[in-house]
Amino acid sequence: MFFASDNAGAAHPQVMQRVMDANTGYAMPYGADPAMEEVRTQIREIFEAPQAAVYLVATGTAANSLALACYCQPWQTVFCSDVSHIQEDECNAPEFYSGGAKLSLVSGSDKMTPDALRARIDMENTRGVHGPQRGPVSITQVTERGSLYSLQELTALTAVATSFDLPVHLDGARFANALVQLGCSAAEMTWKAGVDVVSFGGTKNGCMGVEAVVLFDPDKSWEFELRRKRGAHLFSKHRYLSAQMAGCLDKGLWLQTAKAANKNAARLAQGLRSRGAEFLHEPQANMIFARFPRRVHERLHDAGAMYYMWECTLDGDDPDEMLAARLVCDWSIRPDQIDLFLSHFE
Amino acid sequence: MFFASDNAGAAHPQVMQRVMDANTGYAMPYGADPAMEEVRTQIREIFEAPQAAVYLVATGTAANSLALACYCQPWQTVFCSDVSHIQEDECNAPEFYSGGAKLSLVSGSDKMTPDALRARIDMENTRGVHGPQRGPVSITQVTERGSLYSLQELTALTAVATSFDLPVHLDGARFANALVQLGCSAAEMTWKAGVDVVSFGGTKNGCMGVEAVVLFDPDKSWEFELRRKRGAHLFSKHRYLSAQMAGCLDKGLWLQTAKAANKNAARLAQGLRSRGAEFLHEPQANMIFARFPRRVHERLHDAGAMYYMWECTLDGDDPDEMLAARLVCDWSIRPDQIDLFLSHFE
Amino acid sequence: MFFASDNAGAAHPQVMQRVMDANTGYAMPYGADPAMEEVRTQIREIFEAPQAAVYLVATGTAANSLALACYCQPWQTVFCSDVSHIQEDECNAPEFYSGGAKLSLVSGSDKMTPDALRARIDMENTRGVHGPQRGPVSITQVTERGSLYSLQELTALTAVATSFDLPVHLDGARFANALVQLGCSAAEMTWKAGVDVVSFGGTKNGCMGVEAVVLFDPDKSWEFELRRKRGAHLFSKHRYLSAQMAGCLDKGLWLQTAKAANKNAARLAQGLRSRGAEFLHEPQANMIFARFPRRVHERLHDAGAMYYMWECTLDGDDPDEMLAARLVCDWSIRPDQIDLFLSHFE
Amino acid sequence: MFFASDNAGAAHPQVMQRVMDANTGYAMPYGADPAMEEVRTQIREIFEAPQAAVYLVATGTAANSLALACYCQPWQTVFCSDVSHIQEDECNAPEFYSGGAKLSLVSGSDKMTPDALRARIDMENTRGVHGPQRGPVSITQVTERGSLYSLQELTALTAVATSFDLPVHLDGARFANALVQLGCSAAEMTWKAGVDVVSFGGTKNGCMGVEAVVLFDPDKSWEFELRRKRGAHLFSKHRYLSAQMAGCLDKGLWLQTAKAANKNAARLAQGLRSRGAEFLHEPQANMIFARFPRRVHERLHDAGAMYYMWECTLDGDDPDEMLAARLVCDWSIRPDQIDLFLSHFE
Repeated sequence: MFFASDNAGAAHPQVMQRVMDANTGYAMPYGADPAMEEVRTQIREIFEAPQAAVYLVATGTAANSLALACYCQPWQTVFCSDVSHIQEDECNAPEFYSGGAKLSLVSGSDKMTPDALRARIDMENTRGVHGPQRGPVSITQVTERGSLYSLQELTALTAVATSFDLPVHLDGARFANALVQLGCSAAEMTWKAGVDVVSFGGTKNGCMGVEAVVLFDPDKSWEFELRRKRGAHLFSKHRYLSAQMAGCLDKGLWLQTAKAANKNAARLAQGLRSRGAEFLHEPQANMIFARFPRRVHERLHDAGAMYYMWECTLDGDDPDEMLAARLVCDWSIRPDQIDLFLSHFE
Repeated sequence: MFFASDNAGAAHPQVMQRVMDANTGYAMPYGADPAMEEVRTQIREIFEAPQAAVYLVATGTAANSLALACYCQPWQTVFCSDVSHIQEDECNAPEFYSGGAKLSLVSGSDKMTPDALRARIDMENTRGVHGPQRGPVSITQVTERGSLYSLQELTALTAVATSFDLPVHLDGARFANALVQLGCSAAEMTWKAGVDVVSFGGTKNGCMGVEAVVLFDPDKSWEFELRRKRGAHLFSKHRYLSAQMAGCLDKGLWLQTAKAANKNAARLAQGLRSRGAEFLHEPQANMIFARFPRRVHERLHDAGAMYYMWECTLDGDDPDEMLAARLVCDWSIRPDQIDLFLSHFE
Repeated sequence: MFFASDNAGAAHPQVMQRVMDANTGYAMPYGADPAMEEVRTQIREIFEAPQAAVYLVATGTAANSLALACYCQPWQTVFCSDVSHIQEDECNAPEFYSGGAKLSLVSGSDKMTPDALRARIDMENTRGVHGPQRGPVSITQVTERGSLYSLQELTALTAVATSFDLPVHLDGARFANALVQLGCSAAEMTWKAGVDVVSFGGTKNGCMGVEAVVLFDPDKSWEFELRRKRGAHLFSKHRYLSAQMAGCLDKGLWLQTAKAANKNAARLAQGLRSRGAEFLHEPQANMIFARFPRRVHERLHDAGAMYYMWECTLDGDDPDEMLAARLVCDWSIRPDQIDLFLSHFE
Repeated sequence: MFFASDNAGAAHPQVMQRVMDANTGYAMPYGADPAMEEVRTQIREIFEAPQAAVYLVATGTAANSLALACYCQPWQTVFCSDVSHIQEDECNAPEFYSGGAKLSLVSGSDKMTPDALRARIDMENTRGVHGPQRGPVSITQVTERGSLYSLQELTALTAVATSFDLPVHLDGARFANALVQLGCSAAEMTWKAGVDVVSFGGTKNGCMGVEAVVLFDPDKSWEFELRRKRGAHLFSKHRYLSAQMAGCLDKGLWLQTAKAANKNAARLAQGLRSRGAEFLHEPQANMIFARFPRRVHERLHDAGAMYYMWECTLDGDDPDEMLAARLVCDWSIRPDQIDLFLSHFE
């Protein structure tokens, strides 16, 4: 019963098989391996973007920081949700990679609304050189609270950015989970919706550690390559990054793993709902924030269930007090584990 | 006949097996996996340093840059060889990670001598706040020209550093190749010789992409952890880094792979010598810089041999002109490939 | 009728005389001039801090950024008001000088309360290496909205910082204006209240361009000197900075100029109040935020009064609409100018 | 007898008068003062560059660092003399302002030759993303050893830069001293010779502390303004910078002060030569490196002469040993002081 995160499960056998297959003979280093050529082609097809620049790095923070740095001057500010990963979970990596840019937070603790985004950008009116200059907007899809932006919502946000002539980054650590839920194309969820650069997650979706950065403006490619190398994120034995991503994309595996994770999360959500749990955010993808009684938490805890209490602790006296948990389903979670988890509510 | 680099070969089957074995169930992320505990213990034993802080990253540039940043203020200067990897092949990553420190180059185009190092440090006499302040000394072992520092030479260099109260970093991307050649212990080649922090290479020595950073002063550990995270080099699915390193260290594999590489390079060197090749640097480990006639290069080239011409090109008229090549043997090169290579000299 | 800012008035004749007196013969550069020795002694006496390190720079942003950088690691976050100068008016200089630290904003749009500060620090609970680490608290006295922290309020804030073991910076661009209003000693408003480092403003208080940084921990001095030089803020002909500050401190001029500014601001506030103006913030020092009818603004504008409309514009139809203005009195404003200003309300 | 530096003399009375004249009433801050308009116009005329962007800062290091940062990416390297001010005397400020660029040193210990420059640029052949990328060339005129580049020499250097498509910065801390000696126009010594951006010194030439940055490409202006503010080098009471520069330029004072300094240095050089001194570098402007016997140094020292021994100390036994001194004449040195200095050689 592991619901602590989707970054702790194993990699999918198909991914690993591809890695093993790649482990033969010599391959040109630094991204000149044949599998990278294949990955580039596949991702361009997936995104219907034949000119896009496509690169691989090993961590989501690297993908986000390098992508943003290509669109952000050190004297600018990135507009993002106050609970975004770049704000809360990257230990100032975006500031580091951008050379000291600021993050301007859009309040709301989950999805940004166009009004809130516009108000925040308006507020950063810079007064000449005095304030930080307006820089990129970064949107997280799936959000850090497990929510989804509909295509309409996404487009409304990018329209705000565009009205200020600002570029848009999409943090897609859970890109596939969003995509399969929205049932749209990758192009629709990105460049057709006004996104300039995407962090396209592989790690949480069945890989060991690989993320793609997709820049729809190929003119950014050389700068990205230099920033990646200078950030120490260019792999010599790059074939193992390529192989992971190739294995993940092959035969649509990435969509299947995402569907599996979402489906199991839906099963869990439904079970929780029918057992009286309350939701902090409406479950939409593979991450659930639910409140249920302390005594259930205690039972689950004793049974070895792994998950994070959410802004509360297990300690306390009242067995009926409702306490929140964050529950994440990765691609490999089994339905019987969901059912076992739910059985502790009885 | 692949002699282009030791960063282009496959990973060793034992390493890959360990990675496959690790690919089951859930594991705590970010270095809290059990295999990391094992790796930490093993490396502390190897280095006879029970208190050492041990961390894994995926690239050699990350290992070097993060290690140096822990020992270098932004207003300082790193003393290193003018052909060191940190100077020539990291696209200003050390400057980036240190926040803008300078690199002060010790001329010589291969090994630093104590006199040259002392003279360079003397020159950086700072005049109060005006010049850059003296910072760490970085030594590469095996050097970028395939040379080795003897323990005596190493100690003489660190003694210079110590006389100025400066810390010492060892870039050991080819640590094992040096160790097996010197026939000494890891402790003798590092902290017993006055080294404070080591980049301990795995990638070139049979792994997919993993390097350890070993800090003999455990008080540096928290700073390293923060710098690693901020640099986006902390892996969530860390088990795959741990597994590589564990597989590499297990049953002394890392020493066997290094010995194999060195032995084959020695075979190649001997063959070249007997065929009249000249050496730019005396071959000592697994990297050879040799000069031989253009016509031989042409023959090798036609036969598909892969290696870099060294500061020259194949173009030219004189078939007898002596042209230099860099030839690197990785752990997986086969003796018959050496012999095939040499056969083109006939 | 110039109320646009206190950074636009002339320097006080006594300051200028001291500068002229300094302009003779040779003086040792870089702060080794005799006047700096005098300034250091005077500031140590004023602050009752015989060990304090005292340095001069030419701009308030330099003072703030360098002071903070000495107390802030790149992976940390500075806690400050959401309308602080370091957040709104320094174009990411604090981020630049700290190497990419973050600013965590305490909402309230003027003074921070201990509860709000504590809540903000609590929120930045870092979760190990993932979030930014907690760094210094920066307090502005006089605030950017013209408010004052009482000694009790100040101590309550620093107590919060201390409870998290965080250092405290005081942005005292208008230090003297606060001091004369509170009627306390410089020591009481700083180290006795728990402040570690002060930006002590001279520019707005009758100088051409000079600010002192006072570090109560002398162990920080060498780092500050290096940061100042590396930031290009060390003056060779330092005597002209020293002379300004010496002239400003001599015979308590700095207190007189601050009193004059505050007194005139009080005269203005009283006049505004009696004429029905509303105050956005209770006037306490030399900066007033007042709302009065558009028609009065228009009359003042026509008469050549200089000041900033506050988050509104003069354009509009309703002559009775209440519009806000920011009105700042510098040391040199004349009472008759106040009266002339007020006469336009009739 | 003050020959320690040209950064230690008083400011010229005409400069100070202009500063005093500026000290009346209110003036718009941050460079919007009328005197700045005048300075901009004057400098554009002097440089015959009606479109040039012109800015003032207070230190030479600020001028150099900000100017270079506008022409240098963090992954690039600046080519400069191994004894340039940016390398030896700015405590890594260029690295700081550029975000971690490298400095690649052209050996020679004084003037760069086109061949040496070309060889150094050639050496930085980058190998794709691996090495630092080639960035701007920085030339110092007058050099740190008191030498001059002729227009022909200057053009030969910029031609090398241009052949690699690299921009050129001129560190003109002693711009005027060079100009009057060459007898050419400011345009000839800069943009007509291939220079893109100039640090135009005022401090050493009779001001308190002001340097202009002249960017011949006006498209760089906004970036420069943001970098200046973010570096904390934008003065609120900017009029005092403007006044200094205006006073310095008015009626060609800047040329007269430079001529005075050079003339006195020539008088000193001639006197030294006739007394058997040897020159490390042929004296060409206002800075002399001369070797003469220890006993003369001792006599001068006892008489209170101020200057730096050059890479040697006064301690020693042999009264006839030739020891080197650096002797700098500023604009205010009096001929009788030269003669008094020389009298100690008898």
